[in-house]
Amino acid sequence: MPGDRTSILVETTRRLLRRGATANLRKMINKTHAADISALFRHLSASHQSFLFAMIESPQTRGLILSELDENAMKRIAEQMPVSEMVEALHDLPNDDVADIIGRLPAEQAEAILQAMNDEESQEVEGLLGYDDETAGGIMTPEFVAVSQEATAQESIESLRKEHLDVEMPFYLYVVDENGRLVGVSSLRQLVLEAPERPIKEFMNTDIVSVRTDMDQEEVARLVARYDILAVPVVDSDNVLKGIVTVDDVIDIIREEATEDIFKMAGVGDEFVENQTVMRSARIRLPWLFASWIGGMMAALVVGGFAETLEKVAYLAAFMPVIAGMGGNVGTQSSTIVVRGLAMGRIHLADLWKIVGKQLAVGVILGAFYGLLVGTVAKVSFGQANMAIAVALGMLASMSIASLMGSLFPLIFTRLNIDPAVATGPFVTTATDVVSVFFYFSIATALLGI
Amino acid sequence: MPGDRTSILVETTRRLLRRGATANLRKMINKTHAADISALFRHLSASHQSFLFAMIESPQTRGLILSELDENAMKRIAEQMPVSEMVEALHDLPNDDVADIIGRLPAEQAEAILQAMNDEESQEVEGLLGYDDETAGGIMTPEFVAVSQEATAQESIESLRKEHLDVEMPFYLYVVDENGRLVGVSSLRQLVLEAPERPIKEFMNTDIVSVRTDMDQEEVARLVARYDILAVPVVDSDNVLKGIVTVDDVIDIIREEATEDIFKMAGVGDEFVENQTVMRSARIRLPWLFASWIGGMMAALVVGGFAETLEKVAYLAAFMPVIAGMGGNVGTQSSTIVVRGLAMGRIHLADLWKIVGKQLAVGVILGAFYGLLVGTVAKVSFGQANMAIAVALGMLASMSIASLMGSLFPLIFTRLNIDPAVATGPFVTTATDVVSVFFYFSIATALLGI
Repeated sequence: MPGDRTSILVETTRRLLRRGATANLRKMINKTHAADISALFRHLSASHQSFLFAMIESPQTRGLILSELDENAMKRIAEQMPVSEMVEALHDLPNDDVADIIGRLPAEQAEAILQAMNDEESQEVEGLLGYDDETAGGIMTPEFVAVSQEATAQESIESLRKEHLDVEMPFYLYVVDENGRLVGVSSLRQLVLEAPERPIKEFMNTDIVSVRTDMDQEEVARLVARYDILAVPVVDSDNVLKGIVTVDDVIDIIREEATEDIFKMAGVGDEFVENQTVMRSARIRLPWLFASWIGGMMAALVVGGFAETLEKVAYLAAFMPVIAGMGGNVGTQSSTIVVRGLAMGRIHLADLWKIVGKQLAVGVILGAFYGLLVGTVAKVSFGQANMAIAVALGMLASMSIASLMGSLFPLIFTRLNIDPAVATGPFVTTATDVVSVFFYFSIATALLGI
Repeated sequence: MPGDRTSILVETTRRLLRRGATANLRKMINKTHAADISALFRHLSASHQSFLFAMIESPQTRGLILSELDENAMKRIAEQMPVSEMVEALHDLPNDDVADIIGRLPAEQAEAILQAMNDEESQEVEGLLGYDDETAGGIMTPEFVAVSQEATAQESIESLRKEHLDVEMPFYLYVVDENGRLVGVSSLRQLVLEAPERPIKEFMNTDIVSVRTDMDQEEVARLVARYDILAVPVVDSDNVLKGIVTVDDVIDIIREEATEDIFKMAGVGDEFVENQTVMRSARIRLPWLFASWIGGMMAALVVGGFAETLEKVAYLAAFMPVIAGMGGNVGTQSSTIVVRGLAMGRIHLADLWKIVGKQLAVGVILGAFYGLLVGTVAKVSFGQANMAIAVALGMLASMSIASLMGSLFPLIFTRLNIDPAVATGPFVTTATDVVSVFFYFSIATALLGI
């Protein structure tokens, strides 16, 4: 439904833009949810984006759209806005989103906006700007409900009524000691159910899952997903509560990280840039292809080394694509299983040899099956038993080694603290190409007695 | 951290199992979080799983573990449990999870468990079993907080205290009319902040995002992610409120769907089966490779058709792997961008020709760059201008056509209502192999005047 809804919205908007139906556009855009507007903007030109954005009356909606747009679109629109309008638009946005936006703006504009904000807001935002983007500190919001461990259930509810009106999603109440250190957690629901005069420290939960400000966002996301929690508290090295990471941000991270993995495996950068220019896309993809290029040149050298064999038995060339191709595909299968297994926490480095051994076994079985098949075809086509055996063994070698490399590379990369997703795609298929061709021609040269 | 934590837990458990330290194991397992135990179980043999499971004292923990285990492990353990123990373990679990478990058990055991449950629970579970697994109905929980539109803020809080103690995450209160139709939504937070005597219909939110029971789970997940909501109400065709889908289930779906897409693209089935046997893995991967096999045989036929050319210029074979390989990788890049763009709702079918045109343009640019590079290498190596031009044009043709096919196939598959993820991987690389080889040899044959 969100997809269909966007399609309809895009088509309607384009039609109204063509007709110049400004009044209708204004009416429509002011009735549309911010999340839908930012989806719509991805399909419009920069000038149409600015034209529509200027029509939006609610500062809250403007802020939400800014927080959901792609970086470039956000910067382009924000740079055209006066400081006062920016401050208004950002005012109701959670401060983690405000920090994300301000951190991406030119220093001068960012400074001007921070100065025009009220002190509490600008201090919180500046605090957040100090953390690395992809850590718990970088994604947390400093707006949470903290109560003293001496408070009663009733007092806690009162404090919620009076002090914490700006908190985004107050489902957990964090209990802190006099130094701000996290000592327990309770929920709004629990407060409502307890006797009003009961002190919170008597019924709070002290078995808390918390994360440090410097934990990688991907680990934070995995933790929230595993324990099915709605928000996780973020503490510094002294266990002082600094903020919380909420589940809506975790969903975005999980989607982003999955996309990042998929794109890295295919060698197309690490984010979705397809709403940008052809030249930019080509520039991002060009270097990733260089690994294939190097591998291809090595394969050319290998084939060149067997020129004599090839001149005598030109038909050997006919089976090169299938042997290299099947090897490449089996290698991709193995590396995908390992990379995704690592990302999902289903595979662990400690089991390295067990995993690689298993992938090798699978490769040998698949190689034997398809080797037999290709050998039979070769025998039927050319009648030469030696040729058939060479082709069959070439397939077996290619698929076995591809499976081995496809599983081993990502695990080794992980051990070396390199992202395993980078190890697959171009890398594995290319290495497979070179090795398959080499084994195939070596076996053929030996068997055919050239 | 969850990964590391699991590694340590796995190693400790294995050591204690080897030593036969039953008392220590019992102590450890009863102190471990259910989510961690199910992660641990993936690394243990079936008999060790049963051995440890029997040591767990808390029925709640047992239920949670059953709900998080892989299907086969869950069935194996559940089948060994007496009906009374199963009922106890399932009692505190949300009913959507109970239905998932019971729906997977043998009919006889499922029936026995349902009969031993209390009536309210078994009716709810049986209701859920009627929905398709992968729809909103199949993933919703029927435990939600619904209040009458005539109730006041105070009465709503009271009803929460008295009636809805079993509701998993009561952050939203749904307001229904006398026929159970959804008319509004409010939050616990809003209730706490409003004047106690104010009727809920005066301050409830009537602009509700809801889904129908038959909506696909992937669309539900996309909707929850887009609008940053914690739970979405599920209604039937008469707008009667049937249940809610909570954000924790959405996270699981997003992870599963991403994994499914990644695996389909690589041609390794659609779920993670690597904790199973070698033979099972090989059997799942074997048919997916058949597409490559067919393509490989076609490529062999093509090369065979150019045997004359090859016998005269054996060196042509040297550039076959790099031309087919670069084409395959560019094709994979394009198809990955399109498949993931579709999944993320960033690409729409309506823009088909714009998308394909852009991918073709990128392919031509990349093909021109690497064609020039490979042509230069060929010229330097062999000195023959015609040979160099043939190789360069072959590369240009291969990469352009691969980019075109890589983007066109998934879009056509989508239009035909076939999952586009299936269209990539083996399919695109194989088609590319055949077409690249054909163009390369055709161009060479023409240019070299053979």
